[in-house]
Amino acid sequence: MVQYYVHGYNQRESIRLQDQASTLVELLHSDTTYPAGSRVLEAGCGVGAQTVTLAQNSPSAQIVSVDISNSSIAEARKKIEALGFNNVSFQQGDIFNLPFEPESFDHIFVCFVLEHLPQPIAALTSLKRLLKVGGTMTVIEGDHGSTYFYPDSKAAHNAIQCQVDLQKQAGGNANIGRALYPLLDAAGFDSIHVSPRMVYVDASKPKLVEGFTKNTFTAMIEGVRQPAIEAGLIDETMFDAGIQDLYRTAESDGVFCYTFFKAFAIKPA
Amino acid sequence: MVQYYVHGYNQRESIRLQDQASTLVELLHSDTTYPAGSRVLEAGCGVGAQTVTLAQNSPSAQIVSVDISNSSIAEARKKIEALGFNNVSFQQGDIFNLPFEPESFDHIFVCFVLEHLPQPIAALTSLKRLLKVGGTMTVIEGDHGSTYFYPDSKAAHNAIQCQVDLQKQAGGNANIGRALYPLLDAAGFDSIHVSPRMVYVDASKPKLVEGFTKNTFTAMIEGVRQPAIEAGLIDETMFDAGIQDLYRTAESDGVFCYTFFKAFAIKPA
Repeated sequence: MVQYYVHGYNQRESIRLQDQASTLVELLHSDTTYPAGSRVLEAGCGVGAQTVTLAQNSPSAQIVSVDISNSSIAEARKKIEALGFNNVSFQQGDIFNLPFEPESFDHIFVCFVLEHLPQPIAALTSLKRLLKVGGTMTVIEGDHGSTYFYPDSKAAHNAIQCQVDLQKQAGGNANIGRALYPLLDAAGFDSIHVSPRMVYVDASKPKLVEGFTKNTFTAMIEGVRQPAIEAGLIDETMFDAGIQDLYRTAESDGVFCYTFFKAFAIKPA
Repeated sequence: MVQYYVHGYNQRESIRLQDQASTLVELLHSDTTYPAGSRVLEAGCGVGAQTVTLAQNSPSAQIVSVDISNSSIAEARKKIEALGFNNVSFQQGDIFNLPFEPESFDHIFVCFVLEHLPQPIAALTSLKRLLKVGGTMTVIEGDHGSTYFYPDSKAAHNAIQCQVDLQKQAGGNANIGRALYPLLDAAGFDSIHVSPRMVYVDASKPKLVEGFTKNTFTAMIEGVRQPAIEAGLIDETMFDAGIQDLYRTAESDGVFCYTFFKAFAIKPA
């Protein structure tokens, strides 16, 4: 999975993921609470940005968080231990070949993971084997194609498209959010319910202007400047103009829109 | 206003507007109820698609619905009378020069109107004069740039862009929804709150697949085929492929997303 992870593993990215989770935590996670004693698999925990919220919202569940990257797991573990949670255990593993018994989990949680995988249906099918019949699958993904803003800007859309293209070259799909229903259906899940979580930001929401428009989304796009230019996807002038126009949407008369998708589904008999 | 109205005034359009209102009525209107005795101006009522819902949700308010088109008003009046409502009166008038006293309304309601006006801020400013201090302004608009779908299709986006371009040529803005906050702010309103109303459609929502994806949105885009081709915005093959791809999103593995924006604001002292 490491080679597919277009965002990279540097420190700034780690801070961005944490910022993202803390400003969006209510929007994305407030309706996910697992019952006491239930066994929950978090597949692809990364550095633990979502693990913290899972642990907080389901204090009496047994959460097992896995990731393919040992260094990410080390960071996630540090975070969970620092906060004093004792309901999470960590394990290294490949999402396509996890070291667990079939039907050994009551619930599975997957957040910002499928977007990086060349075979998201196979990943869901593989995870489904680990889920008990009647158990729930929760998937959260973003969708960069859901981004629009005021004032509109061709350069900004071009800069965003660089991220989409790079992620595609790495085997992923930055526009996967809209496809959660067909993906879960193709993987054989039942009772699929998709709930869009739109982030709408104007000047009346200064925390989201800072925390989302500037420090999460625009910072993420800024992060692909060098690879995008090196890959010949865009020239410097256009990219920098696009970033400037994204920051422009954070001014007092600007508006920024982005939509995450959250899906619930059940494993049929 | 007639010359700006890119959708046209034909029968099919009239059915489409009605379909749109009846399938989206809860999403867009359920939180608009005016108190008994309050005087409400509906500016730009058209053929009365929204007037019916206003009359229903605010049975004891005094609704005054105006439009620049006498034939639209006649149709709206017929609709309201057929349903037996007695809380609506109609009057012909230009939104920039309405025959009412300043500060003579408690509330103003504007739905799918600003998108057709070359000077939306001037329209809001003009309406504000008719509103009492502390009175509310409610504005609902769509945003065609908020449209995305699965499977994605360049041809479909091109066909949609024809509608955006034609509306722009006619002086309007089909992407105005995202701009409601800055528009109301520029017109001098206070306490502006914008609430996006996203229509998310997948196969689990067959009523929206028929009522929105196919019979509202795609039908609307289909309706500009001839003017778009005549204006040289697109060739027949591309346009027809785009329409086919929009219908494709209504199949069992398809997804369609569109966002309306609803804004509330108050006239300051």
